[in-house]
Amino acid sequence: MDLKRLEAQLSFLMEADRLKNIYRQTYTKVDDLPPQPDGSNVTKPYPRRENDAEHSFSLALFVAVLAEYSNEPIDVLKTMKMVLVHDIVEIDAGDTYCYDVAANTTKRERELRAAERLFGLLPDEQQNEYRQLWDEFEAQQTAESRFAAVADRIQPLLLNLSRDGLSWQQHGIHLHQVQQRNERLCDGSKEIHEYIFGLLRDANKRGILPD
Amino acid sequence: MDLKRLEAQLSFLMEADRLKNIYRQTYTKVDDLPPQPDGSNVTKPYPRRENDAEHSFSLALFVAVLAEYSNEPIDVLKTMKMVLVHDIVEIDAGDTYCYDVAANTTKRERELRAAERLFGLLPDEQQNEYRQLWDEFEAQQTAESRFAAVADRIQPLLLNLSRDGLSWQQHGIHLHQVQQRNERLCDGSKEIHEYIFGLLRDANKRGILPD
Repeated sequence: MDLKRLEAQLSFLMEADRLKNIYRQTYTKVDDLPPQPDGSNVTKPYPRRENDAEHSFSLALFVAVLAEYSNEPIDVLKTMKMVLVHDIVEIDAGDTYCYDVAANTTKRERELRAAERLFGLLPDEQQNEYRQLWDEFEAQQTAESRFAAVADRIQPLLLNLSRDGLSWQQHGIHLHQVQQRNERLCDGSKEIHEYIFGLLRDANKRGILPD
Repeated sequence: MDLKRLEAQLSFLMEADRLKNIYRQTYTKVDDLPPQPDGSNVTKPYPRRENDAEHSFSLALFVAVLAEYSNEPIDVLKTMKMVLVHDIVEIDAGDTYCYDVAANTTKRERELRAAERLFGLLPDEQQNEYRQLWDEFEAQQTAESRFAAVADRIQPLLLNLSRDGLSWQQHGIHLHQVQQRNERLCDGSKEIHEYIFGLLRDANKRGILPD
């Protein structure tokens, strides 16, 4: 056994564990409070944000279950690997809220440095494979990356709808912003685009996503 | 578009979100505290338990990166799907701590009921696919299920070692118990079995896993 190789792989996997500490703007579906340090249970409803590991878990399952809706046939394994690492750079670069214009101007540079360090933990050929998956997701030029982006957009949107638009309201987000951000869903899946835009119109009618 | 089919798939995916509320005995690698309801940051070190969604995320990445160590060639996509849903029954049946003998006597029955309900949310042929993946994982008769079990065992073990054996100490776990539980690692990967048993001997020498 090549001990150095296995240890490089495990150091990457253990570093990826830190995705569990990067919290997003989206709230999980069900009210809960994590167990307290003393082990007691807490039953008080608690709007908890989800973290990048939880988000990535959801995307992998979305891709597995919904792959049939991709406009073009996709390599499902490749797409699942892609979504598992698509946010890994946030371990160093943090989560940039999609509607925060200022933070988004420095996002690319911060994330490139992070990609160098994090994928650099892996043995050479795996470093290339996973770095290419991340680059491919960012570039949005392949069927796999476009379908991964569909999952990445609809998962927080559906969670947010199940919370009656809580994170939209906290950030004063309007219908046209969500429509604009989700326009390109049709590049990955015309069917899911159509379905989601119907949900947005309903949300607008229900008063949880103003004009 | 078959709207009923898509809605069944989404209802399964949204129900799976509840894995984010099932907390395990294992602590995440890095001290942190989730953001508070008022949005404030908390910097105090906090030994936080990981939940099933985070655990399943880690397993999918472990399988993707470490597949080469399987004793037999495996279908990586199938194995990744398997680990994503292997704990889904805990949404209804709860997490049963592996060293809790009493709780483990009722575990099977509780989990079978949960599998019926949860996989039953999916359209028929996907219900069969995912239910079979879960049954296959439980039965441990295929190369894929044995390698999935390798990931399922070493991930909490490595986290726990990074925490100097915190959850072992909290439950008074001894070396022979951990060795016994991990004996069958060699069914899925002789190389990983050898490596992990070396780590356990080291942990014993360091005094964090007593005889």
